[in-house]
Amino acid sequence: MVRIYGDCLSGNCYKLKLVLELLGTPHVWKFTTWKNGGTHTDAFRAINPAGKVPVLETSKGEMIPESGAALYYLARDSHLWPQREVDRAQVLRWMFFEQYSHEPNIAVSHSILTGIYSLDNAEERLAALKPEGEEALATMEQHLASNDWLVAGAPTIADIALYPYTSKAAVAGFELEAYPAVVAWLGRVERLLGFISSDEAIAQTTPE
Amino acid sequence: MVRIYGDCLSGNCYKLKLVLELLGTPHVWKFTTWKNGGTHTDAFRAINPAGKVPVLETSKGEMIPESGAALYYLARDSHLWPQREVDRAQVLRWMFFEQYSHEPNIAVSHSILTGIYSLDNAEERLAALKPEGEEALATMEQHLASNDWLVAGAPTIADIALYPYTSKAAVAGFELEAYPAVVAWLGRVERLLGFISSDEAIAQTTPE
Repeated sequence: MVRIYGDCLSGNCYKLKLVLELLGTPHVWKFTTWKNGGTHTDAFRAINPAGKVPVLETSKGEMIPESGAALYYLARDSHLWPQREVDRAQVLRWMFFEQYSHEPNIAVSHSILTGIYSLDNAEERLAALKPEGEEALATMEQHLASNDWLVAGAPTIADIALYPYTSKAAVAGFELEAYPAVVAWLGRVERLLGFISSDEAIAQTTPE
Repeated sequence: MVRIYGDCLSGNCYKLKLVLELLGTPHVWKFTTWKNGGTHTDAFRAINPAGKVPVLETSKGEMIPESGAALYYLARDSHLWPQREVDRAQVLRWMFFEQYSHEPNIAVSHSILTGIYSLDNAEERLAALKPEGEEALATMEQHLASNDWLVAGAPTIADIALYPYTSKAAVAGFELEAYPAVVAWLGRVERLLGFISSDEAIAQTTPE
């Protein structure tokens, strides 16, 4: 059985819980948080030298850091990883877009505004992140205006990768009303059989 | 035949030239630079709405933005994309690591120091990028101290993805002497049959 190390307060961890629930994959969730340096201990560095969650541990004990790599591993034999090679490349295209152009702007803004990050120059950082976050949402809007899903007309791990922080964009200071196709797509993801909200994922994986 | 839109002054574009040469893949290189807003024109936005290079165009005319997605597409049937699923996940792990934890620190420092980016607060930005860039190099060093290659004991697109900006780390203000295993690995990549340097890639793909 696979094991996940993570804290669903992080959208990068929540992605994995979401795909596990959508696929009905048996798993063990090992709650591991960055709070109080929890991912910078020697014990956790032995699991992931980069000191970050999430990490997927395969049934054979091999460790796979990076949410995108773990999503691939979990979905590789499912309908969430398409059959055509060009579609697979497009799935990866959106997953790299998420990690490079979307998450560093929208997730970081979310973390500042919700107090997960405490910065001296918070206002300045937020102002710097805003235009690139808007650009990322505009790129999604343009694509989703004529496509129900990001790739090949069906849900894939590209949608799963982009859902968590897009769904939190309003809390991150972005006005989603300006992106109606994105809002409609969020609703489509939420109606998938097995969908679990961020709050439910946190409740199910965090010890009391 | 595949076509690539890009400018090898960018390491993200050079990655694609490198894999094309290592695999001996026939291709057309369509020189496209971000300079003077060259990737923000309506014509280029029709190719990639995000307005960024590189973009791979398949033989059927489908556009694949994001260097990581294009690397996957080019290498999917080659020895640079391993057979075992867990190894494939590890390749993606290093590729996501590169785009999230390595490139935004080392490549951006390189661009500031070489004048590709002109910033008002250059010194401050460089100081902010330094610790995370060092952390990325330390993560590679730890892995490469006991592994000749990033994944499965053989070269993969993970090595190709990490080569360009690691090879430029010295120009980006990082002292590679502190990372001897990384330096040895750079040499291993450079001895691969078909290897092409960044300067050669620029010379071959840039119009006079």
